[in-house]
Amino acid sequence: MTRDSRQTADVILRIAFPGQDRLGRGKMALLEHIRATGSISAAGRAMNMSYRRAWLLVSDLNRMFDKPSVESQRGGQKGGGAALTPFGEALLQRFRTMERAAETLLADDIGWLEAHYRPGSAGTPPPEG
Amino acid sequence: MTRDSRQTADVILRIAFPGQDRLGRGKMALLEHIRATGSISAAGRAMNMSYRRAWLLVSDLNRMFDKPSVESQRGGQKGGGAALTPFGEALLQRFRTMERAAETLLADDIGWLEAHYRPGSAGTPPPEG
Repeated sequence: MTRDSRQTADVILRIAFPGQDRLGRGKMALLEHIRATGSISAAGRAMNMSYRRAWLLVSDLNRMFDKPSVESQRGGQKGGGAALTPFGEALLQRFRTMERAAETLLADDIGWLEAHYRPGSAGTPPPEG
Repeated sequence: MTRDSRQTADVILRIAFPGQDRLGRGKMALLEHIRATGSISAAGRAMNMSYRRAWLLVSDLNRMFDKPSVESQRGGQKGGGAALTPFGEALLQRFRTMERAAETLLADDIGWLEAHYRPGSAGTPPPEG
């Protein structure tokens, strides 16, 4: 689902909340990069994303739920940085589990779609009307 | 999943094909409107979409798979128009079934997300780093 060179069709899962908020693999990948790098700016760079964009996504995430997903860490040997909160970890793990469950559930349907898929072929003109 | 005034969080399903093509609820809603109206332009209008945009989505769909999803119907009492092919019907039905299955599978997770969701609240400044 997060493979860079996909050979098969993938299920992309996104959650639409009533208040227009969305949760999807962009925010989840950012959480993973923050966990790996300990920094919002480094996580953004790893995703070819501006610091402003990464900051806004973290701001969205911290606002959307009753607990923040990312917390600042000041002082210490690294002189500050960012880390996932326990809620952020739980959110990330749950979303990844949801993705895997959906992929397993829909494997036969994905196979059907792949069997009919015709990549990069020339367009057939659509009908008028 | 296609409700206009959602009170709960919804699963949005999208399929990413290796050749950059995508299949999601926009194209599926367009197929439903073509079936209902018998016309690409009327279907586009029903979705507040330009004819050009509707035409391009149909063109994508007809190119993506080994069989077209929309066919022109010329002559007859209606003087032409558009209709779903048997493949287009099968594609639409399969996608809608996939959406319902995913929604059922993930109902508990959606409940967890909704329980933590905090719509429209003021933003918490994200940490530096």
